[in-house]
Parts: sequence; C-alpha cells; structure tokens
Amino acid sequence: MGNPNYEKYLNDPEELIGEMIDGFVKSHEDRIKQISERAVAKKEAPIEGKVGVVSGGGSGHLPAFMGYIGEGVLDSVAVGDIFSSPSVDHIYEAIKAADGGKGVICCIGNFSGDIMNFEMASEMAEEDGINVKTVIINDDVASAPKEKMENRRGVAGEVIIWKLAGVMAKKGYSLDEIRETAERALFNTRSMGVAHKPCIMPTSGEPSFELAEGEMEIGVGHHGEPGIRKEMMKTNDEITVDLLNIVLEDLPYKKGDEVVVLINGLGSTSRLEMYISYRKVYNMLQEKGIKIVKNYIGEFFTSQEMAGYSVTLTKVDDELKELFEADCDAVGFTRL
Amino acid sequence: MGNPNYEKYLNDPEELIGEMIDGFVKSHEDRIKQISERAVAKKEAPIEGKVGVVSGGGSGHLPAFMGYIGEGVLDSVAVGDIFSSPSVDHIYEAIKAADGGKGVICCIGNFSGDIMNFEMASEMAEEDGINVKTVIINDDVASAPKEKMENRRGVAGEVIIWKLAGVMAKKGYSLDEIRETAERALFNTRSMGVAHKPCIMPTSGEPSFELAEGEMEIGVGHHGEPGIRKEMMKTNDEITVDLLNIVLEDLPYKKGDEVVVLINGLGSTSRLEMYISYRKVYNMLQEKGIKIVKNYIGEFFTSQEMAGYSVTLTKVDDELKELFEADCDAVGFTRL
Repeated sequence: MGNPNYEKYLNDPEELIGEMIDGFVKSHEDRIKQISERAVAKKEAPIEGKVGVVSGGGSGHLPAFMGYIGEGVLDSVAVGDIFSSPSVDHIYEAIKAADGGKGVICCIGNFSGDIMNFEMASEMAEEDGINVKTVIINDDVASAPKEKMENRRGVAGEVIIWKLAGVMAKKGYSLDEIRETAERALFNTRSMGVAHKPCIMPTSGEPSFELAEGEMEIGVGHHGEPGIRKEMMKTNDEITVDLLNIVLEDLPYKKGDEVVVLINGLGSTSRLEMYISYRKVYNMLQEKGIKIVKNYIGEFFTSQEMAGYSVTLTKVDDELKELFEADCDAVGFTRL
Repeated sequence: MGNPNYEKYLNDPEELIGEMIDGFVKSHEDRIKQISERAVAKKEAPIEGKVGVVSGGGSGHLPAFMGYIGEGVLDSVAVGDIFSSPSVDHIYEAIKAADGGKGVICCIGNFSGDIMNFEMASEMAEEDGINVKTVIINDDVASAPKEKMENRRGVAGEVIIWKLAGVMAKKGYSLDEIRETAERALFNTRSMGVAHKPCIMPTSGEPSFELAEGEMEIGVGHHGEPGIRKEMMKTNDEITVDLLNIVLEDLPYKKGDEVVVLINGLGSTSRLEMYISYRKVYNMLQEKGIKIVKNYIGEFFTSQEMAGYSVTLTKVDDELKELFEADCDAVGFTRL
C-alpha cells in the first residue's frame, strides 16, 4: 500500500509511527535508545540516584514528546498512534527505563485516555517497587471555566513542566519536591491558542476539523477540539491581545509579577508571525508592569501542519526563576 | 490598514519586516542588537581580533538569516523585504558591525540581487579599510547542470557554510583560511528539494507558485522557482530516493566517504515526515557504504509555510569533521 493522499510525505500510513520512531532513533543514535515498539529513552537511562522524568501521549506533536528526551528534561517517553494515547505496556516500559531507584515522575497532559493508561502502567510499576507520582498538566484556559480547572486540557504548558521537572531531577531534588514544585508552576501557568487551518490526518487524509474560509477558532485544542468561539480572521495584534487578555485575567497575572512567556507555533504558522505576536505580548506586558524574565518562541508542541499559535505564561518566584535559568539540552531542539 | 488576507497572522503588511525585527530583538535582547532599520548583530560585536561572519538576504526564511546570529555562527545580518535582497546601506552596516580588525567574510546565497548589493557594500567597507571576502553559496543541484555550477542557487547548504565559517572565526582562523575551507566545504555540498504546496506572499495574499492538485515540484527553489520536473505525489521513500540519488550522482559521493546530512523542512512539512525521510536516507547511505558522521533534522531555512523538504549532503575530511563537532549556539535554534 502506497501513499493514500496527496497532502503529505508518507509511505504506508499503517507503518508511519514505526518509521518515525526508527528515523528518530537513527538520527539520535548517540543519545537515544528504543526500549519497546513505541517507547524510547535516553541512552544512559536509568540514571542511578536520580528521579526519572517520563511523559508521553499521541504522536503527531513533534518535537513533543520524543524530542524532549535529553539532559535536564525527559528520561523516557511512550507514544501512541496519531493523536491517540500510548498503550499501557509501552508506558510501563518507559517508567521502568527511567527508574534510577529514586522514583519516577510522569508529567502528562490532561486527556482521559492518557491518564487511564498512565495510571494502569504506574500500578504495574508500583508492584515492581517503583515509586511513581503523576502531574496532570491542564494549562489550556479555553477548555473549561476556572471553577472546573480539573477539566482543562494540557497544551504547550506541558513543555514548561517537563523542563522544570527535568532540571530538578538533574539537580538531585526528591520525587516529592519535584511534584510539589511542578504543581506550583502548573498552578501559575496558563495557555490560550488560536488556529485557522486544520492539520490533515495521515491515515484518512481528512482535515482534523473544519472552518469556513477566513474563519479562525479561538481556544482550539491540540487535536482540533473546539475552542470558545469562532471569529473571522483579524490582525495579529488584535488576536494576540485577545489571547493574552484571556490568559492574564484567568490567574490573574498582576503588576509586579515576573513571568516566562512561551509562544508556540502549531505547525505551519511561521516564526515571522510568531515574532510579530511576541512584539505585542512584550509591549502589553510592559504597559501592565509585568516583567518577562525569559521567553521561548518556536515550534515546541505542534499539531502537524495546523496553522495557528498559542501564548503561554508562567508566573515565577525566585526558585522557579532559577530553575528556568538552568541549561537543558534535548535532541528535538534544532541545533547546529 | 489591517490584515489584507485570511491566510496569515499579520498586521499591516507594509510594516511586517519592521515588526518582525522588533519582535526578534525584543525576544533576544540579552544577545542581539539592532544596528539599522534592517540589520541586526550580536550584542558584543565587533569582537576584537576575530574575523567577522556576515550573511543576509530576503526575509521570509526564518530561522534564516537572523536566527543564526550567535556563538560560533554569524556576527551580523542584513535582511530585505520578503524574498528580496537587503539594501546596500544595511549590508554596509552589518559588515561594519562585524569587523573586529581581522576582516569580514560574507557568506551569501547565489542570487544576483544579493551578490550585487553585497559587492557594493563590500566596496564601501573596503574604503573604510575593512578587508572583506565573499563566499557565494551554490548548493542547489536542481538549478543548473554541473557544468554551469556557477549558476546554481544557494539553499539549505547555506546553514552548513555559516556554521563552518562561524566556528573557524571563533577558533581564531584567518580570513583567507576561513574562505579557503568554506569553499572546500561548499564544493563538497549538494542539496535537492521538493515541494507540493506554495507559501502565501504576505503582501499580496497570493501563492508563491502554482501546482495542480496532487502535483509536486522536484527541485523547487526557496522562493518557488521552478525545479527540474513536476510529478504526481508518490511515497516518501520514492521521493527521498529520487532526491538523494540526484545529490549522490552530482559530486559524486562514493563508498567510503563520510558525510554530514541535513534534512530541512520548508515550513509546513512536519518533523514526522522528515524523520521518515531520514530513515530512508540512512538506510540508502548504509547500503552504499557512505558513513553519516552528523545529521540535522528540522526547520533551518524555511520558505514561510511552503510544504516540502530538502536533503543536503556535505562530504567531510578530518578538518571539516572536527569543525562540525564544535559547539555553536545561535538564538534561532529553539532551546529550553
């Protein structure tokens, strides 16, 4: 069976996850090992005496999840089919591969399939004597009102939590300390996205959602889940103001706060557009007396070629700020 | 004036270059300074006693060109409008900003407008007593037959030359040594690309080129220039074999050679597709007895949201291999 649609560079779509993992491991064979059909780990994992940091989820989000395996980020990852949860067995392999005797922290997005499978895998690992804790990331303001925060999805803020947990584990923090600090960072993290073009699902060749010509979806999810409203496209400044205001009001972020800003491209939106958006974020936060201590602009958690971007803010205290400053080095960051 | 088309996140398209540069400088204000309306430099440039490394070209290719300013890569850059040459004045400012007394090397793509403007700016700088040499990068096999190599365009191979020149400058090599080695690397570098969807020009809202439904252009240029043939989409493996064979035959690369491989996404083609392509490149080169000593997979030189990718090979000797191994750190590589 060949390529069924004209939209992408694929072979048999039934083989694409295996081929992607194979290509990924071949590309990074000095640093990555495959530990099961759908799980990969840092070559030197498990690292004795260090808490293991694990994540995973559906495929189709590169550089998430596999690309964050590296120094000071993740130790191992299990992936599923496109936009589908990884299976229990592969998560179990990922947890075992990360355990260096100090326990494992799983930092995953708030999706029911992922949570269920990570829970079952964690129970299996606990039976082996591995201490497993989980942080459920729910940074997407669009997906539920504040009083139902526990229903919010995880989006680009996941990257923030991976970095913090990874850096803490490298610095020798305990499992409980990492969980406590990651939860505090998560509580101070909010994201809001927009998209105006879907991605194409590789197996079906069909778009992940539908919009009318010129329409955009404010608050769209990483898998094309509906957001809070549809609107006609307007200027970058107008859209960025809307996204940022929703984020700012939700915590709320206030004058005098220090924040980390992450602008995440969903796939086909160019860095040119993202830098124009960052300019507006910068100016707005400066006007409001909120200080940006660090910013990340690029493609960190994509939805294949979806067109759109999101704005994430994390309010930091001195401890979080210091953790953000620590270097980390994962394979999926494009470096020369 | 607002956003004239529904395709992108823009404000007034007449202002987009200025807004992009402003956002870029704000994002990297600890490391980047703006030195003229359309030129930016490393904050500490010029660096006394080091050869300056300069590039530039049309906007719309991020992370090229500005994103390569950093440790061991470029010192300064001048940019033009979307897909248009930078003006002489801004190039002149970039050259001056990079000159630490040991001369400046300009590493630019083989486009007539860029060459003409860099030549004029270099003459102005020479009058100021700055020693300027230029390397014209022409790695795109598709754009002219081998006997007319001097007519070939520069594409993703530009990144390879920036890295080598930047690392050499940092290590203290002289202007002549850098030029000689960059020319040798260039002679051993070949690229071949494919695209099946154009980008949308921000000012007009029009596509950069046209293809029929399901058609792809083998050998397409970074600005949508026609390639060597149009074909209907086929599998990733089939396409990758075609691209790699054209590259391999052109030098030619032979059994026993050691190479660096770069797979560059043109904008909306996902890393998933690029890793599948790398898998095929890896397997083919292994069969042919050609050893990959380093690989880069990601978006290094985009054409906004064009869908497609290119494969670049550089054959390395021991000196080039050592230079590739040296660390470099530029702002446009997405890192956490």
